[in-house]
Amino acid sequence: DERDLKTPDNWVKRHPNLIRLTGKHPFNVEASLPELYDYGFISPVNLHIVRNHGAVPKCDWDTHKINICGNVPKPFEIGMDELVKMPSDTFPCLVVCAGNRRKEQNLVKSSIGFSWGPCAIGNTYWTGVPLRVLLNRAGIHKPGPGARYVCLAGPQNELPKDYPDQDGGPGSYGTSIDMETALDPTCDVIVAYEQNGAKLHPDHGFPVRVIIPGYIGGRMIKFLKEIKVTDRESNNFYHFNDNRVLPPPVDAERATEEGWWFKPEFIINQLNINGAIAYPAPEEVIPKSQKTYAFKGYAYSGGGRKVIRAELSFDQGLSWELSDIHTREEPRWADFSSGDKARHWCWCMWTLEVPIEKLLDKKCVEVCFRAVDQS
Amino acid sequence: DERDLKTPDNWVKRHPNLIRLTGKHPFNVEASLPELYDYGFISPVNLHIVRNHGAVPKCDWDTHKINICGNVPKPFEIGMDELVKMPSDTFPCLVVCAGNRRKEQNLVKSSIGFSWGPCAIGNTYWTGVPLRVLLNRAGIHKPGPGARYVCLAGPQNELPKDYPDQDGGPGSYGTSIDMETALDPTCDVIVAYEQNGAKLHPDHGFPVRVIIPGYIGGRMIKFLKEIKVTDRESNNFYHFNDNRVLPPPVDAERATEEGWWFKPEFIINQLNINGAIAYPAPEEVIPKSQKTYAFKGYAYSGGGRKVIRAELSFDQGLSWELSDIHTREEPRWADFSSGDKARHWCWCMWTLEVPIEKLLDKKCVEVCFRAVDQS
Repeated sequence: DERDLKTPDNWVKRHPNLIRLTGKHPFNVEASLPELYDYGFISPVNLHIVRNHGAVPKCDWDTHKINICGNVPKPFEIGMDELVKMPSDTFPCLVVCAGNRRKEQNLVKSSIGFSWGPCAIGNTYWTGVPLRVLLNRAGIHKPGPGARYVCLAGPQNELPKDYPDQDGGPGSYGTSIDMETALDPTCDVIVAYEQNGAKLHPDHGFPVRVIIPGYIGGRMIKFLKEIKVTDRESNNFYHFNDNRVLPPPVDAERATEEGWWFKPEFIINQLNINGAIAYPAPEEVIPKSQKTYAFKGYAYSGGGRKVIRAELSFDQGLSWELSDIHTREEPRWADFSSGDKARHWCWCMWTLEVPIEKLLDKKCVEVCFRAVDQS
Repeated sequence: DERDLKTPDNWVKRHPNLIRLTGKHPFNVEASLPELYDYGFISPVNLHIVRNHGAVPKCDWDTHKINICGNVPKPFEIGMDELVKMPSDTFPCLVVCAGNRRKEQNLVKSSIGFSWGPCAIGNTYWTGVPLRVLLNRAGIHKPGPGARYVCLAGPQNELPKDYPDQDGGPGSYGTSIDMETALDPTCDVIVAYEQNGAKLHPDHGFPVRVIIPGYIGGRMIKFLKEIKVTDRESNNFYHFNDNRVLPPPVDAERATEEGWWFKPEFIINQLNINGAIAYPAPEEVIPKSQKTYAFKGYAYSGGGRKVIRAELSFDQGLSWELSDIHTREEPRWADFSSGDKARHWCWCMWTLEVPIEKLLDKKCVEVCFRAVDQS
């Protein structure tokens, strides 16, 4: 892309329609919602959200290695050619930034973080080796003293800031997940090297990244370099200072003074229920001559929870109409049933066709959307 | 109790302070919230919610048998003396009726079902044999064709209505859970024969009942008679016609006409977030001369989800103050960590002490409570 010519990212190919949120660099982009929506259930890789914290590291397939280390009986390093020969899994999974739709949230109350629209999101196929397979090979089969967390980190010196004594090392972006989640097959945590059947794009973590279905994107480390088993959460700067939601009375200043960033209960891991209206698109004009109009949009939740209702209100919340929900997802981990253990890792699309008169009614000053999951 | 003298329940001992919601019979009662709250984390058995659908069946320890049947390789019957010799587990667990606080809901929009106050709840220790242990003994080790659901039912002819071709048989109260949940150790489903260390009280299911932590009470079959493995959900009348939440535009009439009771996505299984203010109690007067007042109450959620915030607003929702949360629960199933797989099956108590001036402020026309869980 021409806009990247004078940046360290000038070697990365990018789709011209992406909306750039933070200037040129680091690269933080989303698609326009009508365009992404029109591609349907599976998003194209080049319109998938990108959240970078620094320039894209130039990684090499042949020399890139992941270090499985920390409190493990059998530490090892693994290269990409060896990784792709291990047992793998492929399934569609939504990746969403925790800040999806923050632009609208910021209109209500300003927060830290830049203003994502409704497309900090992408639903694609991912292929990779289950994290538990790598942990098993290192001799870890269950949580225990010393092995309570898995710290994940990208390359050192990826980011401009230098925090020397953190997990992952100086300048790395890192986080951790609990060992139970890492080892539980129904959580589907994978170390992924393919997206939609092709090797990863540099913006999406080439050559290898973590996918943690149902979690916020901020925990799915790209350019994965280190899998470290520890007794405590990652002490990486970004693990504690990013991706928290503190209670409303606690602002950033008070949080820093009183140590709120380190309280485990305010971490964001699983996505919460969310969704948006794709059609009508911004500035779209609906002709009065039409008989009906089909509202369309998406909805999702975290933790594998199924979206069971997507509703629109045309009278400012007094009454709600139920949309049709469409998904092409086969729920995972509930063989032969649609029970509570079934895991839904993808978004669903919804549509509601209404008579034009409903929109012309004077009570209809705005159209509101809401969704409900099974929890 | 004298009030039961002319009912079939006249042999059952009951606490005089229980609030009777549906007249004498069937027996549906809750405690008063300040009284229950004052007992703290563990509730006394005789103030624990009772939800009966008919007269209490007179079961006999020596002759009561559970029939493990349906699509199982090795069906068997088990009596109580044999059951209590099997491996068992003991842990505290909240039992809540799905209709807890329906009285307040009904003030906003009337629903089906009678008006529970905020005490359709009890948090006690339960001891029992894991359901998976019984299923294993019957030869069921994983879900598969024919073995997708576990149908649970109480005695036949317990209830006045006679549905002959249903799981459990005529006049039984029954439901089902998916096989994944039944077999998953982290779901803690048990066939319980002790509450707070004593044999079950007749109102709580003597001699044996099901406990499904994090689920609504309506699925925890009392006086358990049948564990039946099937390929489809229970067809018991109460499984389909009770314990559903349909979208607001769908009333009971439309639901029956259009078959909404049979849509699997509108079943209620896991509890959702809820809570209440115990102090100030109804009619309590706070003297102006006091410097501060300590608000107190409880909060809980379902599916093992932890309550992370309990908040009060003194200005009608414009701002919220964070209460202290107290629990005496050791979370289950996350050895050595407080991670996402940790299961919280109990309620927690919260307190917030505020200066009396806050209550005298003219903006303070009412005090609102809300809670947030980790999802």
